[in-house]
Amino acid sequence: MKKVAIVGGTGYTGVELLRLLARHPSVSVCAITSRSEAGKAVVDIYPSLRGEYELNFTEPTTDTLSQADVVFFATPNGVAMKQAPKLLEEGVKIIDLAADFRIQDIDVWSHWYGMEHACADLVAEAVYGLPEVNQEAIKQAKLVANPGCYPTAVQLGLLPLIEQGLIDTGHIVADCKSGVSGAGRGAAVGSLMCEAADSFKAYGVAGHRHLPEIKERLSLAHGSHVGVTFVPHLTPMIRGIHATLYAKLSQPSTSLESIQALFEARYQNHPFVDVMPLGSHPETRSVRGSNMCRIALHRPQGEDTLVILSAIDNLVKGAAGQAVHNMNLMLGLAETEGLNSVPLAP
Amino acid sequence: MKKVAIVGGTGYTGVELLRLLARHPSVSVCAITSRSEAGKAVVDIYPSLRGEYELNFTEPTTDTLSQADVVFFATPNGVAMKQAPKLLEEGVKIIDLAADFRIQDIDVWSHWYGMEHACADLVAEAVYGLPEVNQEAIKQAKLVANPGCYPTAVQLGLLPLIEQGLIDTGHIVADCKSGVSGAGRGAAVGSLMCEAADSFKAYGVAGHRHLPEIKERLSLAHGSHVGVTFVPHLTPMIRGIHATLYAKLSQPSTSLESIQALFEARYQNHPFVDVMPLGSHPETRSVRGSNMCRIALHRPQGEDTLVILSAIDNLVKGAAGQAVHNMNLMLGLAETEGLNSVPLAP
Amino acid sequence: MKKVAIVGGTGYTGVELLRLLARHPSVSVCAITSRSEAGKAVVDIYPSLRGEYELNFTEPTTDTLSQADVVFFATPNGVAMKQAPKLLEEGVKIIDLAADFRIQDIDVWSHWYGMEHACADLVAEAVYGLPEVNQEAIKQAKLVANPGCYPTAVQLGLLPLIEQGLIDTGHIVADCKSGVSGAGRGAAVGSLMCEAADSFKAYGVAGHRHLPEIKERLSLAHGSHVGVTFVPHLTPMIRGIHATLYAKLSQPSTSLESIQALFEARYQNHPFVDVMPLGSHPETRSVRGSNMCRIALHRPQGEDTLVILSAIDNLVKGAAGQAVHNMNLMLGLAETEGLNSVPLAP
Amino acid sequence: MKKVAIVGGTGYTGVELLRLLARHPSVSVCAITSRSEAGKAVVDIYPSLRGEYELNFTEPTTDTLSQADVVFFATPNGVAMKQAPKLLEEGVKIIDLAADFRIQDIDVWSHWYGMEHACADLVAEAVYGLPEVNQEAIKQAKLVANPGCYPTAVQLGLLPLIEQGLIDTGHIVADCKSGVSGAGRGAAVGSLMCEAADSFKAYGVAGHRHLPEIKERLSLAHGSHVGVTFVPHLTPMIRGIHATLYAKLSQPSTSLESIQALFEARYQNHPFVDVMPLGSHPETRSVRGSNMCRIALHRPQGEDTLVILSAIDNLVKGAAGQAVHNMNLMLGLAETEGLNSVPLAP
Repeated sequence: MKKVAIVGGTGYTGVELLRLLARHPSVSVCAITSRSEAGKAVVDIYPSLRGEYELNFTEPTTDTLSQADVVFFATPNGVAMKQAPKLLEEGVKIIDLAADFRIQDIDVWSHWYGMEHACADLVAEAVYGLPEVNQEAIKQAKLVANPGCYPTAVQLGLLPLIEQGLIDTGHIVADCKSGVSGAGRGAAVGSLMCEAADSFKAYGVAGHRHLPEIKERLSLAHGSHVGVTFVPHLTPMIRGIHATLYAKLSQPSTSLESIQALFEARYQNHPFVDVMPLGSHPETRSVRGSNMCRIALHRPQGEDTLVILSAIDNLVKGAAGQAVHNMNLMLGLAETEGLNSVPLAP
Repeated sequence: MKKVAIVGGTGYTGVELLRLLARHPSVSVCAITSRSEAGKAVVDIYPSLRGEYELNFTEPTTDTLSQADVVFFATPNGVAMKQAPKLLEEGVKIIDLAADFRIQDIDVWSHWYGMEHACADLVAEAVYGLPEVNQEAIKQAKLVANPGCYPTAVQLGLLPLIEQGLIDTGHIVADCKSGVSGAGRGAAVGSLMCEAADSFKAYGVAGHRHLPEIKERLSLAHGSHVGVTFVPHLTPMIRGIHATLYAKLSQPSTSLESIQALFEARYQNHPFVDVMPLGSHPETRSVRGSNMCRIALHRPQGEDTLVILSAIDNLVKGAAGQAVHNMNLMLGLAETEGLNSVPLAP
Repeated sequence: MKKVAIVGGTGYTGVELLRLLARHPSVSVCAITSRSEAGKAVVDIYPSLRGEYELNFTEPTTDTLSQADVVFFATPNGVAMKQAPKLLEEGVKIIDLAADFRIQDIDVWSHWYGMEHACADLVAEAVYGLPEVNQEAIKQAKLVANPGCYPTAVQLGLLPLIEQGLIDTGHIVADCKSGVSGAGRGAAVGSLMCEAADSFKAYGVAGHRHLPEIKERLSLAHGSHVGVTFVPHLTPMIRGIHATLYAKLSQPSTSLESIQALFEARYQNHPFVDVMPLGSHPETRSVRGSNMCRIALHRPQGEDTLVILSAIDNLVKGAAGQAVHNMNLMLGLAETEGLNSVPLAP
Repeated sequence: MKKVAIVGGTGYTGVELLRLLARHPSVSVCAITSRSEAGKAVVDIYPSLRGEYELNFTEPTTDTLSQADVVFFATPNGVAMKQAPKLLEEGVKIIDLAADFRIQDIDVWSHWYGMEHACADLVAEAVYGLPEVNQEAIKQAKLVANPGCYPTAVQLGLLPLIEQGLIDTGHIVADCKSGVSGAGRGAAVGSLMCEAADSFKAYGVAGHRHLPEIKERLSLAHGSHVGVTFVPHLTPMIRGIHATLYAKLSQPSTSLESIQALFEARYQNHPFVDVMPLGSHPETRSVRGSNMCRIALHRPQGEDTLVILSAIDNLVKGAAGQAVHNMNLMLGLAETEGLNSVPLAP
């Protein structure tokens, strides 16, 4: 039984980690930290976990955390980078669910996140934790940058096309829709039920922090610059991201069936990507509470624009589930351990 | 590995059975029937189950069903009573998730359900499947009547008080609120999102079919007639029932603490009832997707009216989960097998 | 054209006043104040009002406010009582949408609101602004206490019965359900969409501030103490309150038809109470955005417990609409001026 | 006082017409028809209209309808084309809220709507009722084809650019999101709250009936073929459409400020289009219940892809409100009569 700790356990990614780890057969949670709730029982904040955990929230001291084999940082941006060096020295493996290690280009990172990086040298060492790309590297990694939620949905929908050079990489459109849990559990007016329910809007059109992550990773896959217009939207639901991706085929003669075959082959050994039959429309609820990404391909009216639909649960495949997946790989466990819950629908 | 079949698998209780049974370690689903969808793959109707089932819907023939050790009827009222005699003869155990065997008084049943009973003699044999009351009888049962969703929430909140004669049984108020899934997957205008969302209403105040069930079971527990005013309400959410129960203490001197102790003792060996600390307010989402019933006790302003709050997921503890619980008991399995999923919150 | 000002205009009751007053033919808004947003344009905070108002938020100085004929306080509790004396001296009429003047018993008020009253003498002068009770007094009033949202729905459902002595006033149950806008626009975790959506819970069962208001007003109507068990619930919708009221008939021989006739007579000259036909179930959406209260009466199973259903829009009849109604009366205008919008359904 | 009749009054566009017309100062509803509900009072189906209408639903006979000055068809596709010729002969003006007269190319229409056109000659006579384009023609029209909801949001967002030839018209992307009311009040499983709430999906990606309408109208504005990839999505809300439009600038040197100025000039005399300040993100709730279309322009990261956001209430500007706007023009009334309700937010 391996021991894991969670830093910043009161947010939605923290509680989702707790939900998933409660049934993981090979690890146990030895500590969960929260400065604001230190001393309180986890189940007093999250009654849904009553009977599952005896733990109290504690202060995030290195002493506490260094007892763990793996530490998850479910903290705001800028926290993990301060604590990571010490913990890595102590031999602890780290999975950061925030953005501190997601972007290799430090200048780009600083520009978008508005701070100096506290350990730029570690960024190069960090492995980008998208198992469908970096499975082998993750197995060897000491420090994993868990991908952003939007970048996960977008990359999985585009990677096969970009890797094979099938689309015009200058003008991709990623129109993405997220449930409100993506905004976190912080008390913000914009996330109030009366502000977000029964309404729909775009936000951050001028520029969202997940844009440079998407661009960097797609460009790495492509071997050169990829141009993406990325527009996130707030959808009146709790969980779920739906990416609608538009890409122009380089060769109009490429058949949709061949692309379907490409996607199926690309993901056949990846248990958390489901390439649906042609003509499907994945619903976010079909992955609610699960680590699955469902993808469907369309070529409307036979024109040269390909439409790829990609749906994930932002808190699972877009955050905590992918983090557990990465942990499984880092610890040499089976990929799917603790991640086999069936989606909750309706 | 025991074999189970589901009759009427396209409704919400049917798909919820499939979700729960997909991870049950000791049973496998050998057949799922639907007259309207016969021939179609289960996963074409329920993409959330992709990868979980290879089954197609089939016609509900006795031949098909008699191969199962247990058959679940997730059908409209009046279906199970027609097929039950034959299947029981074949040695198949039956769990009816509809109302055909819930009420012992056949006249009362016919009055409320508007039809003659097709096998009145079997009703007396049927065991009312509330494991917190009938655990031992269920273990021996061949035919179990799975309780209604409202009756489950109401009984669990009142039983300890009624069994101990602590409240005025003449004037109990059960103000109950249900999510829309309680109305089923039938295409009805009243269940449309545009009719049911962002609104709240009572319905069936003059009389709801769960009233005679509640009255009969509470009266059996009490030993004589219990008077209940039961008002169901439609709440703009998918899953969940919240019962707010009002009862006058027979003896105002009875302390709330002693009642709390009584509830804790009453349910200590029942894994699916969680008596929360005094002063709690159970949320339905704290049991979303799980078989748990959470109960909290209040005595507002120290007056003689007791308020009991009882929350369940209507599709799990109020239907499919309780049915699996009953199946576990009938098959001699551990009570909690296949029922240990952690509630999905948020 | 009379001039009105709004103090505390950034909350939901403030913006609702702006919505209603934008179309009021006899008044214009001369000032709207907000310490936190002073200097900003109203329409930058509320784009739904673009084209309706040129106003900026300003500081709530007495100079600004004393230019108005009527000042609405849409502020937290404890603000109006500090500014009211000065403004009344200046001849300004005041309508307080908070609780400072709702309760005549100052000790009770201080107990529940946790502060000393700043102008206890004015409380006696204040008129409780429920037009269906105090219409004539409101016309003469200089200071009106706009009722709470729950107390409005509860009183309108019970007053005819209590005034006529038809029910047991010792054991009334008021089971009330509110949309999330009742919690205001403050950034609180409990009001986040991810906390409040797709879930249902009771809150404040031990005691809610609207309880003493309900008790005092019903007791005044009755002439002696009325006992009420009041349980508020949070419902996953934006607007709306639904009160389900349970009362035992003093005389079981009283017919439901006679009570229906009583309600119809009681409210026939009150344009904002709609007594629906017997057997109706008012939906909150049927009053969405309007100042109407819809009421329906039931006597389930012919027993001696009466069930009264009462539905309002908490932001209109439960707050801003009732305040405009009170203003109309105070200014000698027609009752319904500016309040004739048709409910928005679906 | 002009007389209007509504054919097919039980759907959402029918009841929305009733809501708007209830306060229209210059017209009165003389008849509302429904085969299925004939004989029933309107307010029994729509309690939100209690006190507003005395009307009963009637059969849609020509006798009844020919008494009206204007008849609205709020019926399924294929109904208006059968009744229109007779009514036009009788001198009645017609506004069809369905699709019978929206598309000039009859073959295209038949292909997408799957039926022969019953009066192809009238199609050429019909005026496409988008007042921001055809204001003068609508004033003279006897037969108006009220635009589709998606086409309204999309055209208003693109027309200024297309009219001025500023964008690449070969590869426009229209990613559109609609509330569930767009699917109508028919009892369909996909519109159930339990299917549509708390989830998000695309639908009709292969081809949606609003695509040929969008293409034809944009091509007419452009003078030659316009290529559009149109993907509609179902959003878990009741009302609202949000179109996110992507277009490549023909000349990258065109400044966003100049485009903003162009939009402001284009719509300055059109009271129901609000061009918001640069950088805005219109929310659908900011137009809830109103006839307004709010538009905002973006040019993310200064690249050559323009993003236009366009939000309407699908039942108002996307249906009933635009129909009343058209009626006002046809009857020589002020454009905004009966259409000045303030959006309901929150």
